[in-house]
Amino acid sequence: MTTRCVVAGIDIGGTNTVVGLVDFHGAQISELRFPTQAHERADEFLPRLVNAIREICSGLPPGNPLAGIGIAAPAANSRRGTVENPANLNWGTVNLVEMIQEHLDVPVVVTKDSNAAVVGEMRYGVARGMRNFIMITLGTGLGAAIVVDGELHEGEHRTAGEFGHFTVDPSGRECGCGRRGCAETYVSASGLRRTVFDLLASRTDTGELRTIAFNDLTAERIFRLAQGGDPIARAAFELTGIYLGRMLTNIVAALDPEAIVLYGGLVNAGDLLIGPARRSFEEHVLPLYSGKVKILTSDLNNGRAAVVGAAALVCDLLQNESTHVLQDQITS
Amino acid sequence: MTTRCVVAGIDIGGTNTVVGLVDFHGAQISELRFPTQAHERADEFLPRLVNAIREICSGLPPGNPLAGIGIAAPAANSRRGTVENPANLNWGTVNLVEMIQEHLDVPVVVTKDSNAAVVGEMRYGVARGMRNFIMITLGTGLGAAIVVDGELHEGEHRTAGEFGHFTVDPSGRECGCGRRGCAETYVSASGLRRTVFDLLASRTDTGELRTIAFNDLTAERIFRLAQGGDPIARAAFELTGIYLGRMLTNIVAALDPEAIVLYGGLVNAGDLLIGPARRSFEEHVLPLYSGKVKILTSDLNNGRAAVVGAAALVCDLLQNESTHVLQDQITS
Repeated sequence: MTTRCVVAGIDIGGTNTVVGLVDFHGAQISELRFPTQAHERADEFLPRLVNAIREICSGLPPGNPLAGIGIAAPAANSRRGTVENPANLNWGTVNLVEMIQEHLDVPVVVTKDSNAAVVGEMRYGVARGMRNFIMITLGTGLGAAIVVDGELHEGEHRTAGEFGHFTVDPSGRECGCGRRGCAETYVSASGLRRTVFDLLASRTDTGELRTIAFNDLTAERIFRLAQGGDPIARAAFELTGIYLGRMLTNIVAALDPEAIVLYGGLVNAGDLLIGPARRSFEEHVLPLYSGKVKILTSDLNNGRAAVVGAAALVCDLLQNESTHVLQDQITS
Repeated sequence: MTTRCVVAGIDIGGTNTVVGLVDFHGAQISELRFPTQAHERADEFLPRLVNAIREICSGLPPGNPLAGIGIAAPAANSRRGTVENPANLNWGTVNLVEMIQEHLDVPVVVTKDSNAAVVGEMRYGVARGMRNFIMITLGTGLGAAIVVDGELHEGEHRTAGEFGHFTVDPSGRECGCGRRGCAETYVSASGLRRTVFDLLASRTDTGELRTIAFNDLTAERIFRLAQGGDPIARAAFELTGIYLGRMLTNIVAALDPEAIVLYGGLVNAGDLLIGPARRSFEEHVLPLYSGKVKILTSDLNNGRAAVVGAAALVCDLLQNESTHVLQDQITS
């Protein structure tokens, strides 16, 4: 019997960490999630990650051990194997590859979360076959990746795609980056929450939102309340969609892509967010792009694009660097 | 005696048209300028352009006729040879290549003005050897070109680089594109003029600017007045520089370039504009780029980058498509 060769694809988000077992064809075999604690240091987070990897691998047959680990993380530097001062985690700069390899003796690669998601989307998702597109990740923050001519554009310092730090209002909301009015202070899960509190201040509608403290409010809860008809929750999604649509008009003017792929937890809100975003985009986009740029939502959501993308990157490494070893494993 | 093989490089701007004779090494031999009349139709403009080309070629020795014409124009489509509804010219859509070839029997190529300038800058200017940079053209409007990995990024519809239509203020100045608050309504020669009139309205300083009608005011005049110490003129340049610096922070966050090359008539204002732009950029840029991105001014200014760039493109065409014919000419 031929056993399948598997790797782990991991997406470390500001809110949740997803660990998936993925085969060499991008199919996800199993998945495990646990909350990422934003206040935790990296060395406090690590044992939980290692345990999760061990747990998900415990069901693997003895003849088919884990072949490698691909990790998607914010502010990752793939050349150095590091995560460097991520805005939404209390990690500072750490060498994540070395830290994991102290516990697990397999090849490990780390890459920017948005990059991993792009690779997943290009290989297995709605962007299959596209040469020029932008992927926007709407999670705790706003990440993005730019694909130019079929290749990820990483930029001179490997930090391209920081659309989340477009200044949309110079006197606007304070941002984690130390500046004001960055797009992600409006267009992200945390931006949505801030918009709810803005509306609670400016409007008089009553409802459950008035009973929830800032730190207890999640995008998921706002979503459920919006589905139930809560006027503030609905207005917050609508405003977030309008901000998003306007932001996309600037991105399209800059880069002239074939499509924008929206990805990340917030996209699960569906038409509550995407409807106003599409309308606002078409209303405000430069006329020459009117009706010409597709705004798509990922069908590899809930972290799956990043998980299968990170997995694909470690598979590439394994296939390129150790073809002979792998051949042995695959046919064993 | 070996005669030099020459082509014409032409830059059609919203204010002036520059016709240059350029040799195959990018050296400009002679130059002729005439005002572009914004209200003129293309068929009214054409005879003046053809005459200018004939005039500048009149000094060529008989054995070394003009080998080709490269044209840089706004809203040009290089595939079709057309100029399509340029915002700052009353042309509509015309096939410029065919129109010129009715009068002059040589190969003609047309390309976007910003693209031509990039080619000139990469081959002969401050961007020599760079792989990732952005060129911003500050003329009547604001054009831009994006170089990714040594190649011009034209985008899916060949219209990438419209940073001039970034919305900087949704309720701001009306733009020729039909929207409001586009960057070029602030950061361009016409934006500078509008800022002067804004300041004339909001401030009380006296001076020559109060004697000049809107239609009579040019960026050059504002520059001369600023040099003479006029407070409104100086403040207008300072504000334009601040807007420019802030705009560059968004471009850098998006694309992570090695450098920004500033080009175009407005750049002649030098430190009056570039000083505040650099200060505003460093003050507002995302901390991770602080001190890392060069803001350069072109040394091929006054249309020369576009002229030598457009000339280089027709030289490429001639060398690729008619190597044997050219060899005859070059050695004749």
